[in-house]
Amino acid sequence: MSATILSVKDITPVPPAVLEALRSAERIALAGHVTPDADCLGVIGAMQLGLRQLGKQTAAAMPAGSVSRKLQFMVDLASLHPAHASELAACDAALIMDTAKEKRVNIDGKLEALPSARIINVDHHASNTGYGDVQWIEGTRSSSCEMVYEILRGLACEITPEIATLLYAGIHSDTQGFSLSNTTSRALQVAHELAECGANVVETCEKLCRSYNASEFALLKVIYANTRISEDGRLGWSTADYDEIHSAGCTAEDIDDQVEVVRSIEGVRVAILFTEGKRGKVRMNFRGDRGLPVLDLAKQFGGGGHDMAAGAILDGTVPEVAERVLAAAREYIPANA
Amino acid sequence: MSATILSVKDITPVPPAVLEALRSAERIALAGHVTPDADCLGVIGAMQLGLRQLGKQTAAAMPAGSVSRKLQFMVDLASLHPAHASELAACDAALIMDTAKEKRVNIDGKLEALPSARIINVDHHASNTGYGDVQWIEGTRSSSCEMVYEILRGLACEITPEIATLLYAGIHSDTQGFSLSNTTSRALQVAHELAECGANVVETCEKLCRSYNASEFALLKVIYANTRISEDGRLGWSTADYDEIHSAGCTAEDIDDQVEVVRSIEGVRVAILFTEGKRGKVRMNFRGDRGLPVLDLAKQFGGGGHDMAAGAILDGTVPEVAERVLAAAREYIPANA
Repeated sequence: MSATILSVKDITPVPPAVLEALRSAERIALAGHVTPDADCLGVIGAMQLGLRQLGKQTAAAMPAGSVSRKLQFMVDLASLHPAHASELAACDAALIMDTAKEKRVNIDGKLEALPSARIINVDHHASNTGYGDVQWIEGTRSSSCEMVYEILRGLACEITPEIATLLYAGIHSDTQGFSLSNTTSRALQVAHELAECGANVVETCEKLCRSYNASEFALLKVIYANTRISEDGRLGWSTADYDEIHSAGCTAEDIDDQVEVVRSIEGVRVAILFTEGKRGKVRMNFRGDRGLPVLDLAKQFGGGGHDMAAGAILDGTVPEVAERVLAAAREYIPANA
Repeated sequence: MSATILSVKDITPVPPAVLEALRSAERIALAGHVTPDADCLGVIGAMQLGLRQLGKQTAAAMPAGSVSRKLQFMVDLASLHPAHASELAACDAALIMDTAKEKRVNIDGKLEALPSARIINVDHHASNTGYGDVQWIEGTRSSSCEMVYEILRGLACEITPEIATLLYAGIHSDTQGFSLSNTTSRALQVAHELAECGANVVETCEKLCRSYNASEFALLKVIYANTRISEDGRLGWSTADYDEIHSAGCTAEDIDDQVEVVRSIEGVRVAILFTEGKRGKVRMNFRGDRGLPVLDLAKQFGGGGHDMAAGAILDGTVPEVAERVLAAAREYIPANA
């Protein structure tokens, strides 16, 4: 049995250029990726609260309608208000976090909306393209929240209970409760320190993990009922078409990490969820497990993401798209496993 | 927003009498509770590996058939072999862990099977009755694995990757991925230290959280499909009768923590799972949430357990038992919420 996780002694500190870029700025735009998850909202919220301690002005980029019901509590906890385009345009720095590609930045008009800003790119996606003026990209970090914790410590900010809660939410969520391969020793150490700083673990995890509303639960029933496994057990998938999603009372924004239902089955190396949140557009969530990456499979369909968690969107009906993608997956698994 | 968790500075050290009782013994029986969970197998496995480093003889009490398929990897990891009655009888000490009541000890013949042994009772259940000759009961600890970690440190045992993995499994499982109210700052600190010692987080959590076999998954589909919520949303329940359980390919031993499906719904204060694993015997798993304990409700039906996680068994069919218990729960919630 081998130890598979990263030890604290292997971590690298925050690049001084990142700290300096933040220290020297006055008006700082904060942004993450489209369809923000808990890690993304955690970093925006925590940095806003931290930078304001230092007297900085911050402007959070958060286009209307982009936050799911489930994660609204993080927006409230950080008192995040979507900034106007003019506020963003006036920033002299922009901290773009958790966003591997410029085209995924959750700003109307993308980075062009920040004409005067020095762009600081902080991310734990190894696939980050390295855009911007200053970068800190570390694919071995559990989450962007873990990296932002180091930044806030580096800036000598107080880790208040609110900041601690936001960061705990992001780390907990991206590691799936400290269970995935990005659960490093450092991630657990940071979680411990956040707990000492007053992170509200219970309420946060209730909201993240145990707060399905009736519609979301109805959708889960559909996902369970529609789960199928290939004969060899290595490919698993489920589906929810437009009518099933809308009959459950859900919309495209409610499609989140339900692919984990499929991944939870023993032996499944590739899990795929097909959802038609918008009529005629089928989104796929791919998950790799037991060491089998799925990024290259997702790329076959114009998608992207992490090695072990990727996505793509194709036009068509669920049966049409599923037939095509499942055929490719059946070829992909033996060739890569 | 208040910090709700226990800080490291509030923890108490291992009582010296516990360490002394283990140091002075030569042949030590190790036992936990019936229907052992990951915390229970973690402590037995970790103590066996640790005590053998010190040259002690150990005898693990584990009656045949008492370990679920899902947790068999923990038995294998610690090379646990069920001890014969004669080996147990020859022990001069017995470490009984994670077991609140003598009658729940997982030994054929209970403590009478250990006539020559000094009984050491180590447990994180606040409801522990305090049996035995030496006790360490701490209801504020996340898990018995967290306590056993302190004991092994106190005995100067090396925390090998195998020991670290066993203890991580127990802490992760009892805190439900560091998400429940027993997720203390100390639990996270211990988890970090276990990671530094080489705990195999990924494989362990795969086995604990993402390894449903086809039968277990079929049973989950039933639990999802049968989940119901009271009109006021505060009571949730699901059922699986004998035929449903056996049609899924499962048996009574496969009923584990499926009540969490019901608990995952927003607003549910009391979640109940009714399962008829054996014909005519209906087991109930109760979970309290959002601060509402369920132990007193379970006690109304002769049950027991933790404040927020309890169980009971009644004779009858699922509809008969559910009607009776749900009526009591409907009265219980407003009286206690």
